Amino acid sequence: MKRWTRHVPIIDTLRGYRRTDFGYDLVAGLVLGVVTVPQAVAYAFLAGLPAQAGLYACLAPMVIYAVLGSSRQLIVGPVAIAALMVAATVGEHAPAHSDAYLGITTIVCLQVGILLWLLRLLRLGGIVNLLSHPVITGFVNAAAILIIISQLPAFTGIDIERGDNAADRLAQILSGMGNLDSVAVGIGVASLVGVWLVRRYAGLAVRDRDHPISRTGPMIVAIAGTGAVAIFGLNVDTVGFVPAGLPEFVPPPFDLALWLDLAPAAAMIALVTYIESFSIGTTLASRQRSRIDASQELVALGAANVGAAFTGAYPVAGSFSKSSVNVAAGARTPVSALVCVAVIASTLLWLTPLFVNLPHATLAAIIIAAIVGIIDFSMLREHWRFFPGDVVVHFLALGGVLLLGVTPGLLLGVGAAIVLFVHRSSRPHIAVVGRLGDSVHFRNVDRFTTETFPHVAAVRVDENLYFANANQVEDRFLAIVEQHSEVRHLVLVCSAINFIDTTGLEMLRRLNHTLDSLGIALHLSDVKGPVRDQLESTSLSGELSGNLYPTTDEAMRDLGASQAAATGEHR
Amino acid sequence: MKRWTRHVPIIDTLRGYRRTDFGYDLVAGLVLGVVTVPQAVAYAFLAGLPAQAGLYACLAPMVIYAVLGSSRQLIVGPVAIAALMVAATVGEHAPAHSDAYLGITTIVCLQVGILLWLLRLLRLGGIVNLLSHPVITGFVNAAAILIIISQLPAFTGIDIERGDNAADRLAQILSGMGNLDSVAVGIGVASLVGVWLVRRYAGLAVRDRDHPISRTGPMIVAIAGTGAVAIFGLNVDTVGFVPAGLPEFVPPPFDLALWLDLAPAAAMIALVTYIESFSIGTTLASRQRSRIDASQELVALGAANVGAAFTGAYPVAGSFSKSSVNVAAGARTPVSALVCVAVIASTLLWLTPLFVNLPHATLAAIIIAAIVGIIDFSMLREHWRFFPGDVVVHFLALGGVLLLGVTPGLLLGVGAAIVLFVHRSSRPHIAVVGRLGDSVHFRNVDRFTTETFPHVAAVRVDENLYFANANQVEDRFLAIVEQHSEVRHLVLVCSAINFIDTTGLEMLRRLNHTLDSLGIALHLSDVKGPVRDQLESTSLSGELSGNLYPTTDEAMRDLGASQAAATGEHR
Repeated sequence: MKRWTRHVPIIDTLRGYRRTDFGYDLVAGLVLGVVTVPQAVAYAFLAGLPAQAGLYACLAPMVIYAVLGSSRQLIVGPVAIAALMVAATVGEHAPAHSDAYLGITTIVCLQVGILLWLLRLLRLGGIVNLLSHPVITGFVNAAAILIIISQLPAFTGIDIERGDNAADRLAQILSGMGNLDSVAVGIGVASLVGVWLVRRYAGLAVRDRDHPISRTGPMIVAIAGTGAVAIFGLNVDTVGFVPAGLPEFVPPPFDLALWLDLAPAAAMIALVTYIESFSIGTTLASRQRSRIDASQELVALGAANVGAAFTGAYPVAGSFSKSSVNVAAGARTPVSALVCVAVIASTLLWLTPLFVNLPHATLAAIIIAAIVGIIDFSMLREHWRFFPGDVVVHFLALGGVLLLGVTPGLLLGVGAAIVLFVHRSSRPHIAVVGRLGDSVHFRNVDRFTTETFPHVAAVRVDENLYFANANQVEDRFLAIVEQHSEVRHLVLVCSAINFIDTTGLEMLRRLNHTLDSLGIALHLSDVKGPVRDQLESTSLSGELSGNLYPTTDEAMRDLGASQAAATGEHR
Repeated sequence: MKRWTRHVPIIDTLRGYRRTDFGYDLVAGLVLGVVTVPQAVAYAFLAGLPAQAGLYACLAPMVIYAVLGSSRQLIVGPVAIAALMVAATVGEHAPAHSDAYLGITTIVCLQVGILLWLLRLLRLGGIVNLLSHPVITGFVNAAAILIIISQLPAFTGIDIERGDNAADRLAQILSGMGNLDSVAVGIGVASLVGVWLVRRYAGLAVRDRDHPISRTGPMIVAIAGTGAVAIFGLNVDTVGFVPAGLPEFVPPPFDLALWLDLAPAAAMIALVTYIESFSIGTTLASRQRSRIDASQELVALGAANVGAAFTGAYPVAGSFSKSSVNVAAGARTPVSALVCVAVIASTLLWLTPLFVNLPHATLAAIIIAAIVGIIDFSMLREHWRFFPGDVVVHFLALGGVLLLGVTPGLLLGVGAAIVLFVHRSSRPHIAVVGRLGDSVHFRNVDRFTTETFPHVAAVRVDENLYFANANQVEDRFLAIVEQHSEVRHLVLVCSAINFIDTTGLEMLRRLNHTLDSLGIALHLSDVKGPVRDQLESTSLSGELSGNLYPTTDEAMRDLGASQAAATGEHR
């Protein structure tokens, strides 16, 4: 019984549901609805879709995630970065706001859902780990810049072409500064200031900086902007007619060539969507000392996207802003999301006429205000000191996304991170070690005062032995032997070796052979369990000219003594 | 003075040269010439070039390497695998044996030389480490199969089209079995048997299995084949007219588009050439307890290829068969290579009429006999037990080279090896450790009987903390904390951590924060010098809720005692 309900978490939630919970969830859901409506409309335009598509993305997907999601507070819905990626992907195949555009968007959406399910089915969720911290932060910073640039035309009233890349679009706006639409700019700036004032002071007024009231700025400026246009008859771009009613159930169109064309971009959106949702979900859960279930998240997020695909919406993900509002407004369970869905549905049924006069400049301001905060370069200085290569990867991902596009930029970042890692481990730290005083500890002879024997060299390799470093390690060993002509025993201290691949194995075999021909025995010490198991499956352990010692201490006592006996040095 | 001559190693060689050395070098050079002539002609045809190009490849390149090479025994000249790669590359751009074909070949040759110099200049010689053992063996096995298939038409007299890949060409030969040319097959089989008999029994006759006489089979069957055709007037494909005289100095043609087209393939040939030469050179040197200079090898090999480019030859590399003969025939210095050059030059000047009747079937047999021995699957069984992923990589490289071509096949193998490595390290071995008896050693509690405290968990991560595994490690730590509800101190034993990237750093920061909110302190122990330096450059060391202990022993004594004091458990 337990097992089955694990796959539909809301069942356990409702079983334990109390009347008092509903009071909290109702309030949180209503607040969430107020925050969500203007955001959903704004992100729809960011994605190149009509206003209603954004609202549709808050219906089926939100319900499906509430039922299947393993996080109690995560809210799934339209998010800025997915909207941007949709615009970049679909914009290549159809003009914005056309029917074809919407059809292609639902294909991408369905593909995202299916890919998330595939990741679950093939247990490949771990692939998201390839998107390392510098790649993700580089991508997020670039996406935020792209999103802000994408809003400048609506904000300034300057028309631009699609353009090759971000720099090109920015240049177009700068060169069009003469055609600035003062009404649009006025509304935009007023909206920005409005959102900022509410965020800054509304919380202070109620003596709680994180109070959900501080997130109502977008709704307030949307109402104010709509009112201003209606009352003063301002001549400015507005949302215009939005069809009333709930979405119909329409399967996405099928066209094999198009599906194959879209698949790579959909894969990227799926990965980014999953990472965004999972990291927000984990953060929220850890505040409650609970954890979320990665597999179940893939299932739920996949289902939410499939639901979006069949209801004319676009790819959805866990939303940080909506989830924070939900938590701050006191939500107890996913029931709050269902209340929010009711608010959105009511808006679609009865309030669409209000959008006619909602200015695009206000929506642009809402997006810019939401996105400016996610630009973050603050860690770069520390990261530069810690591991400079990662800062290079950050800027490669950032520059790649800005200048080449989202998918090539992410691939560039991932590729650079892997190359950097392989390069890093190809030059391992290798230390000749000696006994520290009378202890059983062995340390770098260059860093510590240690006891050594002239005829024994103990060398610790601080890296796995594998193809990228096998040759260097061999070379360093031969160089050490060349420098110490008295050496008759070489002890390879394996305490930091976690695995060896066949290139490493063949290197050891060759090294053993070469050293043997020079009259030097090769010993291994401190070999870890898994590596010992690996080595014992080969003929190397039999071929080894020396011994396999459990510890370096034993190796040095044994080999030190053997020489003492042979030369009578210490007698 | 010493410094300067390091770049022209033959100067030091000649300074110490003695009259007796010349006797040895003369004999070795003559034997080498006898072995080289038929091989050079055969490999020229393998590369799709006229016979003389193979002989030209033994003139300038051999002299240049003798002057500049850091190995005393390595012989550089035409080799089968480079010939195959040239045929695959140039064959796409021009019909075999045309003037254009030769021109394109010299471009590739020049590019190989320049790329090798660039590797030296940019100190990027380490890039060859990306070609791991399984990739190289997969490639060599595939190349050997390709070479044998390429010789079947000459061996059987069956004409085939170029074909898409190896399988396709093999299918053509099998379907053409009805047109078998019995004379060609007869000569081919007789030549194969002849080479085999000489190799098997000539050494035994002189009571030295490795005597150079066992390598004279190719020359003997070439003479026998030529004689048979001339005497019995056999109707079979022969080499035909070969122009007499030494090569002229002709610069390779320049055409930017073509150069760019050829560059990727040239890069692959350069890498393979370098690996082949370097590994043979190292093997030969280690037998004499000496080492070769990787940088100097890049310079010398680059120069040899540039020399080949200007003298109508094709890419050259260190040759295993020629070098072995050279050593076995008693060569003392690179002067033996100069004697061999004299033999080749004499052949070109006075003996070219002898090639008219040399049958292609004999040359095919010479190549097949030389190449069959390099096919080696013998290690796969052991490697499968040792690290199964590498066997998969071997077959990906092999299959890729056979079915997709040399460059895509090698890239597939390299890519697969990197993915496999990242995947391997993304699932690190993590062990909860405890004190072993009264010792200062800590071992896996699942493998050993150890002493632990209920309120302290010491966990050793056997891998670098970096992007591919940071999330898993965090997850495992939280799971351990969840299972052990009494834990108040978590000690991360860092003895196997050689470096941490920023993704790992941010994970530690997050983990520290999460554990702190659960009332658990995070401590680090056994942090290595380089990692400690890394961590101290960040604010994490200040934020850490616990301490940085030099050893796990100290951590456990301190934390174990603190609890004892707090709860009075042991008092």
